[in-house]
Amino acid sequence: MKNNIPELRTLIEEEKYQDFYTACRDLHPAVIAGAIEEEEPDKVWKILKQMDLFFRIAIFNHFDHDYQVEIVEILPREDIASLLTDMPPDERADLFKRMPEELSESVLPALAHAQREDIRRLTSYEEGTAGAVMTSDYATLKADFTTDEAINWLRKVAPNRETIYYAYVLDDKRHLLGFVSLKDLILARPNKFIRNLMHEDFIFARTTDDQEVVARKIQKFNLIAIPVLKEDNELVGIITHDDALDILTQEQQEDLERLMAIGGSHEALMYMKKTAWAHFKNRSLWVIGLAVLGLVSGFIVQNYEGLLIQFAVLAIFMPMLVGAGGNTGSQSAALVVRALAIHEINVSDIFKVLLKEFQVAFLLGILLGCLAFGRVLLFGGGSSIPAGFSLWNIGLAVSVALALQVISATLIGVLLPMGAAKLKLDPAVVASPALTTIVDITGLLIYFTTAKIILNL
Amino acid sequence: MKNNIPELRTLIEEEKYQDFYTACRDLHPAVIAGAIEEEEPDKVWKILKQMDLFFRIAIFNHFDHDYQVEIVEILPREDIASLLTDMPPDERADLFKRMPEELSESVLPALAHAQREDIRRLTSYEEGTAGAVMTSDYATLKADFTTDEAINWLRKVAPNRETIYYAYVLDDKRHLLGFVSLKDLILARPNKFIRNLMHEDFIFARTTDDQEVVARKIQKFNLIAIPVLKEDNELVGIITHDDALDILTQEQQEDLERLMAIGGSHEALMYMKKTAWAHFKNRSLWVIGLAVLGLVSGFIVQNYEGLLIQFAVLAIFMPMLVGAGGNTGSQSAALVVRALAIHEINVSDIFKVLLKEFQVAFLLGILLGCLAFGRVLLFGGGSSIPAGFSLWNIGLAVSVALALQVISATLIGVLLPMGAAKLKLDPAVVASPALTTIVDITGLLIYFTTAKIILNL
Repeated sequence: MKNNIPELRTLIEEEKYQDFYTACRDLHPAVIAGAIEEEEPDKVWKILKQMDLFFRIAIFNHFDHDYQVEIVEILPREDIASLLTDMPPDERADLFKRMPEELSESVLPALAHAQREDIRRLTSYEEGTAGAVMTSDYATLKADFTTDEAINWLRKVAPNRETIYYAYVLDDKRHLLGFVSLKDLILARPNKFIRNLMHEDFIFARTTDDQEVVARKIQKFNLIAIPVLKEDNELVGIITHDDALDILTQEQQEDLERLMAIGGSHEALMYMKKTAWAHFKNRSLWVIGLAVLGLVSGFIVQNYEGLLIQFAVLAIFMPMLVGAGGNTGSQSAALVVRALAIHEINVSDIFKVLLKEFQVAFLLGILLGCLAFGRVLLFGGGSSIPAGFSLWNIGLAVSVALALQVISATLIGVLLPMGAAKLKLDPAVVASPALTTIVDITGLLIYFTTAKIILNL
Repeated sequence: MKNNIPELRTLIEEEKYQDFYTACRDLHPAVIAGAIEEEEPDKVWKILKQMDLFFRIAIFNHFDHDYQVEIVEILPREDIASLLTDMPPDERADLFKRMPEELSESVLPALAHAQREDIRRLTSYEEGTAGAVMTSDYATLKADFTTDEAINWLRKVAPNRETIYYAYVLDDKRHLLGFVSLKDLILARPNKFIRNLMHEDFIFARTTDDQEVVARKIQKFNLIAIPVLKEDNELVGIITHDDALDILTQEQQEDLERLMAIGGSHEALMYMKKTAWAHFKNRSLWVIGLAVLGLVSGFIVQNYEGLLIQFAVLAIFMPMLVGAGGNTGSQSAALVVRALAIHEINVSDIFKVLLKEFQVAFLLGILLGCLAFGRVLLFGGGSSIPAGFSLWNIGLAVSVALALQVISATLIGVLLPMGAAKLKLDPAVVASPALTTIVDITGLLIYFTTAKIILNL
C-alpha cells in the first residue's frame, strides 16, 4: 500500500482529473475515499463520474455517512437514482435514512419497484437492531442442487452478493433450512446434494435482536456472516463480519462518549474535522446539566454552613470524601455497564451484583476509613478545633463518613445503570460524570449527618 | 441453536459422560465450551478425551485462557503434548505463554521440532503487536499454479488452515507476491495462471505493528485476513477477521478499565465469576492511590482555612468548581485518548489539539461562569458575608475562578494523555479518575488564589 494521499489531493485541487484517475487505479477504494473526503463535494463527484461504475460505488461506500449526504445533496435527481440503484442494499438504506426527507421522497419514484421495496423494508427496522444493519445481498441455494450446480450458481451470482463464502439454503417459502460454506462446497464430491452437505444446526439472529448482541454472536462463533430471520424463520438478510467490526466500534465510541458525558454524533475519526463550535455544542448540554445538578451540592453545603464555620477542619476532608465516592462509584458503574452490554448479567441479577459490590465496597471502605483516620491524627493538628472536641472525634467522624460514602456510592453505581436498563435506557448514560455528580450530593449529606451524630451536635 | 446448557451441566455433574457426548454432538463447540467451563477441570478433561480429536480441540480453543491453563496443569505430560500438537498455532502459542514456566519447559521436549520452532517464533513477539496475535496456519500458492491446480491444492490443505478464503502467493524465499481469494479462483478460467490473477497491491501488516492498528486495517478494508510480513517482506503469519473482533473487544475493555481506574486482568465475561476479593484487589490499588493524591486537596483547603472561616460562602461553591473541572477535563481527555488510540491524531498534533480545546473550553467557561454568577446573586443571600463585601464581589470571584478552572482542566485533559503517549505509556491511564483527582487540586488552588485577588485580601 503506497501512500499517495498528498499527491491525490494536489491533483484534485488542480482539477487534473484524468491524472487523478491514472494515479489511483491501483489503490484500494478505502484509501482513495480517505484521500478525497475533505475536498468540495462537486469536485469529488466530477472525479467519481469519470470512474467505472464498480469503482465509483466502492469509493462512495467508504465515505463517511455525513459526507455521503453532502454529495448527494448537490446531485441532480437522475445521478442520485443511478447511484442508489448500484449501491449495496444496506449502504443504500443507510444513506436513504440520512438524506433530507424532501430529497429522498423526490428520488423514490425514479427507482425501480424492487429497489423501492428493498429500501422500504430495510429502513423499516428500528435503529440499533439486526434488521437495521443487515443487507439483502446474500447468496441462496436450493436443497436439491448438487455441489457442482451450487458452485456454478454461486459463480453466476457472485458479483452482486456481499459474500459467497456462506450460501443459505431456503425452501420455497424462503424459510432457512441450513447453510453451506464455500469451503464445504470445494471439499465435497461434485455430485453430493446440498441437503446432505448443509449445516442444519446454524447460528442465527432475529430482525429485532440488538445489533451488539448479534455482533458478539459473530465474534463468539467466528462467523463470516450470520443469517437474520423473521419470527417464522424466513430469511430476510445477513450481517457480515465487517459489519460486526463496525457495530462494535460504534458501540464502543457511544459507550465511551456516554461514560464521559459527550453528546452528539458517534462517527469515529472526526475529532480534528469537527469545529470547536461543534465540539462545544456536543459537550455543553452535559456540562451545563451536570453543573445545575452540582448546584444541589452547593445548597447542602450552604445548609451546613454553621457547622463548617464551627468545624472548618471538616472542609479539609470534603474533596477527599467527594472524590473517593466518585472513584469507587465509577468503578462499579463501569463494570456493571460493561457486563450489561455484553449480556453477562441481566437486570434480574441485581441482588447478586449488589451483594458482590457490597462486599467489595465494605473492604474498600475499611481501607479508606483507616487512611483518613491516620490523615486526621497525623496532619490535623494545625486546624482549629472547638473546645471539648479532640482530633480523635474528628477522625472517627471523617472515617466513618468516608466508609459509608464508599459503600453507598458503590451501590448507587450498581443501581443507576441497572435502573436505566430496566427502563430500557442506555445504562452508560448514568455512569461516570452523572454518577459522580449524584454521589457528590449523597456524599455531602452522609458527611454532614455523620459528623453531626458522632460529634453529638 | 437450542439451549441445552443446563442439561449438559447436569450430565457432567452426574458423570454421565456417554450421554453428554450424545447430547452435544450437534452443538457448536463455543456453546459446549460455555456450558462446561465452570466444572472441575478433571471432569471436563474426561469428557474431552472421549471426543474425537477435532471436536476436542475446537471446544478447548473456546475456553477462556485462565481455564485452559487450569486444565493443562492437571494433565500428564503426554496429554499436554498431544493437545499442543493439534491446537492452531496462535492459540497454542497463547496457551504456552500463559503456562507456568516449569510446566512449559517440561513439555517442550515432547513436541516435534517444527512445533517447537513455531512456538518459539510466535512467542518471541512483544505482547500487543501483530506478531503476537498472528497465526502461522495460512494457505500459500505458487505463482505458476493454474486456477485449477490452486483449487486442488487448497482442497488438500484446507483442514489444517485457519482460512482458505484468502491464499497467499509466495516466491522461493517466502516473500509475498500477492494474494487471491477463493472467490477469485471460483470465478476465473481453470487454466488461468495465479500470477495473472493475484492482487499485487495488497494491504499488509508488519510483525511489529500495534495490534489495534492492524485490527483497524482489517476493518477499514473489509478483509477476511491480513498478511503479516517481516521487514524483508517475508510472510510469517496472518491475522483473521475473528482475531480483529477479539482485539477490538480486548482494547475496548482495557480502555474502559483504565478510564475507570480498574487494574488487573482484561478478560471479558468475568464479572460474576471473579470473587469479591479478586475485585477488591483489582480496584483497591487505584482507589488508595487516588485517595492519597486526593489528600493533597485537603492540604490546600487546610492552607486556606482562615479564608474559609471568614468567607464560609466560598465553601458552597467548592463542589461545583471541583465537579465542573472534572467533567470538562474528562471530556477532553476521553476524546484525546480515543483519537490517539485510533491514530487520528499523534503527539505532534499537540498544539492543534490544545488550540481547539482552548476554544471549546473558553466557550464552556463563559457559559458556566454566567451560571455560577447567577447562582450567587439569586441564592447567596442566606450566607454570612463579612462587612465591606457584597454578593457581586463573591459572584465575580466564583465565576472567574470557575471559568479559569474549566479552561485549565480541559487543557490538562489534553496534556496528560498526550504526555503519557509521548513517554510510551498508555494515555488512558491518566484519563478520568486520575485526571479528576489532579484537576481537583489545581481547581482548589485556582479558586482560592482567584478569590484572594478579586476580594483583595
